[in-house]
Amino acid sequence: MREREWRSKPRPQRRPGGHRHQRRDRHETRSDEIGAAAILYGWHTVTAALANPARHIRRLLATENAVRRLQEEGITPPMAPEVVRPDAIAARLTPDAVHQGLLAETDRLPSPAIEDLAAPSIVLVLDQITDPHNVGAILRTAAAFAVSAIVITARHSPEATGVLAKSASGALEVVPIAVVQNLARGLAALKERGFLVVGLDSGGPDDLAALQMQAPLALVLGAEGKGLRQGTRAACDRLARLDLPGAIKSLNVSNAAALALYIASQAIGRA
Amino acid sequence: MREREWRSKPRPQRRPGGHRHQRRDRHETRSDEIGAAAILYGWHTVTAALANPARHIRRLLATENAVRRLQEEGITPPMAPEVVRPDAIAARLTPDAVHQGLLAETDRLPSPAIEDLAAPSIVLVLDQITDPHNVGAILRTAAAFAVSAIVITARHSPEATGVLAKSASGALEVVPIAVVQNLARGLAALKERGFLVVGLDSGGPDDLAALQMQAPLALVLGAEGKGLRQGTRAACDRLARLDLPGAIKSLNVSNAAALALYIASQAIGRA
Repeated sequence: MREREWRSKPRPQRRPGGHRHQRRDRHETRSDEIGAAAILYGWHTVTAALANPARHIRRLLATENAVRRLQEEGITPPMAPEVVRPDAIAARLTPDAVHQGLLAETDRLPSPAIEDLAAPSIVLVLDQITDPHNVGAILRTAAAFAVSAIVITARHSPEATGVLAKSASGALEVVPIAVVQNLARGLAALKERGFLVVGLDSGGPDDLAALQMQAPLALVLGAEGKGLRQGTRAACDRLARLDLPGAIKSLNVSNAAALALYIASQAIGRA
Repeated sequence: MREREWRSKPRPQRRPGGHRHQRRDRHETRSDEIGAAAILYGWHTVTAALANPARHIRRLLATENAVRRLQEEGITPPMAPEVVRPDAIAARLTPDAVHQGLLAETDRLPSPAIEDLAAPSIVLVLDQITDPHNVGAILRTAAAFAVSAIVITARHSPEATGVLAKSASGALEVVPIAVVQNLARGLAALKERGFLVVGLDSGGPDDLAALQMQAPLALVLGAEGKGLRQGTRAACDRLARLDLPGAIKSLNVSNAAALALYIASQAIGRA
């Protein structure tokens, strides 16, 4: 689906070919996942991480109030929290961040290969959606729809930390994120596994709600303003639009994802 | 629908009874609408305002690039823009604001009374949803679904300016916002006009998708974390939940609004 532009600032461009030596095979993690911590803050985001045995916590900061609330809710963190004042947490975040007295430094979660996804029904594929609020909200909605995985590109995607993690409200611990170097090849791998690959595109020939769909299904969404890239579009089995009755035809991309997931779940339930 | 907490900082409380002298009849505008300008920025938000004859523009700031783009797209503003450097616009906004070279100071749009809404089919009622990104995204989706109006409370609602206007991406010019002092009385006024009033509540007895609905319909959404207030809940004809198949049951409130509007539009189409 072609969406309105969310951010106008171009991301730094690498030299053509400049990333050639950074190519990695599908079992490698992103370089930023190896050493850099994920910063998780906010009640739901941190407590979901504490409850995830696959999430290695490096440090846990909590205010006195948050420690009390953890005790009241019967949550025993894997390590004793460092009790700090609220402003010690706030100082590590942007001014508008709502941390609710909890911050964790953790390892990044591993990125599964498309070939290794277990029992897939629906996966969501994000074609260079860069806004972390939107990607976080999409993750949260994906968790609500029992999506098997999110597929994103290694470049032009936000990191699974900070604002994205907060907006995901715990969904990072539930929905695996498969990072691919090349999205067209990622879509080819999905097709090899039997996925029907449907791209959302405002100029698509079919109304998504009228499209026959079956599991396993990959729904592909582009960035607001840019939509799907040409190579992505060409790699889809079908291109479909969301028909909307009103004066403004474009939705926030996370709202578009929610509608597409609802429509697809209905269609698969009928199939 | 009961949603997860979006903001933890309480808004400043007024003294009990301290706002008694600020009561106004339904034809008055909010005090902040009389004098204070709405600050609109971003391409879609500002150009939609320029195209709206009901929107009085006080000042228009544009970068050279934006002036060129306005000319290229055949847009003639009602007044000559003041040509400024991008940082002169940025200095008036938060650091992460994407202004795309356009900023307008305008009058606030008038708030219609519920009794004066023309040919209503669906209205959305927001019960103290405070986050301006969420309310903006809800407005944008409401415009896409041809919603007749949004009803909000005078207190504990964000102003129709800045971040809200940017997230709405032009929808402020399309969807009227009816501001009410007392939401229970507002819902009573909707019922008098024949509306079916359906509140979204995670503990509601019915699945929204299975509920019989007809126009005119009012869908009521509460804030993330708090849900509908008791008085709001009591004023609804029906309370319904959104059934979701996944591990996380709560959605970002704008995504919940998008699904509710889709489901309601389908139900009304069937009725």
